[in-house]
Amino acid sequence: MNKQQLIEQIRIKKSFLCIGLDVDLEKIPTHLLKHEDPVFEFNKAIIDATHDLAVAYKPNTAFYEAYGLSGWNSLTRTINYLNEKHPELLSIADAKRGDIGNTSTRYAKAFFEDMNFDAVTVAPYMGSDSVEPFLAFDNKFTIMLALTSNQGGLDFQVLKDQMGTMLYENVLQTSLNWQNSDQLMFVVGATRPEYFQKIRNIVPDHFLLVPGIGAQGGDLKGVCNYGLNKDIGLLVNSSRGIIYASAENNFASKARDKAQELQEEMAFILEQANI
Amino acid sequence: MNKQQLIEQIRIKKSFLCIGLDVDLEKIPTHLLKHEDPVFEFNKAIIDATHDLAVAYKPNTAFYEAYGLSGWNSLTRTINYLNEKHPELLSIADAKRGDIGNTSTRYAKAFFEDMNFDAVTVAPYMGSDSVEPFLAFDNKFTIMLALTSNQGGLDFQVLKDQMGTMLYENVLQTSLNWQNSDQLMFVVGATRPEYFQKIRNIVPDHFLLVPGIGAQGGDLKGVCNYGLNKDIGLLVNSSRGIIYASAENNFASKARDKAQELQEEMAFILEQANI
Repeated sequence: MNKQQLIEQIRIKKSFLCIGLDVDLEKIPTHLLKHEDPVFEFNKAIIDATHDLAVAYKPNTAFYEAYGLSGWNSLTRTINYLNEKHPELLSIADAKRGDIGNTSTRYAKAFFEDMNFDAVTVAPYMGSDSVEPFLAFDNKFTIMLALTSNQGGLDFQVLKDQMGTMLYENVLQTSLNWQNSDQLMFVVGATRPEYFQKIRNIVPDHFLLVPGIGAQGGDLKGVCNYGLNKDIGLLVNSSRGIIYASAENNFASKARDKAQELQEEMAFILEQANI
Repeated sequence: MNKQQLIEQIRIKKSFLCIGLDVDLEKIPTHLLKHEDPVFEFNKAIIDATHDLAVAYKPNTAFYEAYGLSGWNSLTRTINYLNEKHPELLSIADAKRGDIGNTSTRYAKAFFEDMNFDAVTVAPYMGSDSVEPFLAFDNKFTIMLALTSNQGGLDFQVLKDQMGTMLYENVLQTSLNWQNSDQLMFVVGATRPEYFQKIRNIVPDHFLLVPGIGAQGGDLKGVCNYGLNKDIGLLVNSSRGIIYASAENNFASKARDKAQELQEEMAFILEQANI
């Protein structure tokens, strides 16, 4: 998928919603546990119920690795289902990978080729040659951590250098010089609305993936005030707030209700902003 | 495994060698490809041939994820084999994981509980609450990236703050205040010998995991000059230099030869240093 196709989807659906598929067997409806692969059955039901309201799905690999081989199998089935039924949707492996060059190439192949995800999240600490192997893949997005939503995000990401520039700003700025940097997106937590203006000054044209709405306390309007750009430029993620809206038989329709609330709020914001 | 047991192993074997199991099907002897699980057969042969010369084995997860479900299966078989045959050896999942708290807990469970690795590598960018879930596991080590061996490691890790302190120094210093910080080890590349003295000033007692010997150009003596502490405090890793010493039928005995060269050099260094 390329950027124009993503923007087109957002305009058609009036939604920049990403749904996080962070599946915990202790939180899904118990009637699903009788299936051979309850994680996949859960994801399938969520996708079926919400695909017209969202533009992206983001399974976090930790939740699948925690179930070992069977979890890896559920992840594979989920991405295959997405690619087969809804190739128009952006699929994001939230993996936060990063290693020396020849090793990062392995991760990139795993997620972009074998599993055929459209995007993967990466960590910046190891620098250019840990990220560029991901950027080498055409029509794929590499989504790099910049300013994260968790409390510990402030431990290092806002450290100022001798010019007064914070680490996350250095990360954004430096990455613009990397090969194929137009295929970058950046993770910016919804819990940090005060930083969005600064971020938009550095990366006016790139998409930002914004987690932290809902359970983590982030606010959609605050994010959009400075985060939106002429191409929309935002993917706002909600995981727990949508997929665990109910643990009863009606979980999928309740998830749809929550997704629809966010989509309607997004449609309103886009209309107000005249984008 | 705890630190005393690791130190004891090192003293018995006169070796602080870690062998990286980064298996690439294009580099292993072709006669192994007829097996159902050539990656595991390769690892088993390497472990069988070298276990008395090394104190740790470190599969890098990227090389296994690249083979999808079958790779994850090979990794599981490898760690099971290590735990069953050689429980005295330190097993390290080189995964470089890190995420928000509840998600990092998932990764920690995957590697420490389900697979029963003794140690896992993590990335520091997301700060305290991304690493502490790993540190919550008793008798396990959490090995955090500090100063990496790759060229891109210099992009952000040596950025100076307003006091002149580099990012990797801040990472080391800050992490000492985290819960169970005595279970930390740190990754420091062998290609950065000039930094070891500074690092030892900040973390005099912690173990350092040192990749970059051999293929990446690092030098064992340079590392040991300042890296050794009273408990040895070093695990020096070699991957390609050992496991791909030969691609012929004799690959395992050639790997042993390379491991022995390094072990003998280590024994000499330990003797010289009177440790």
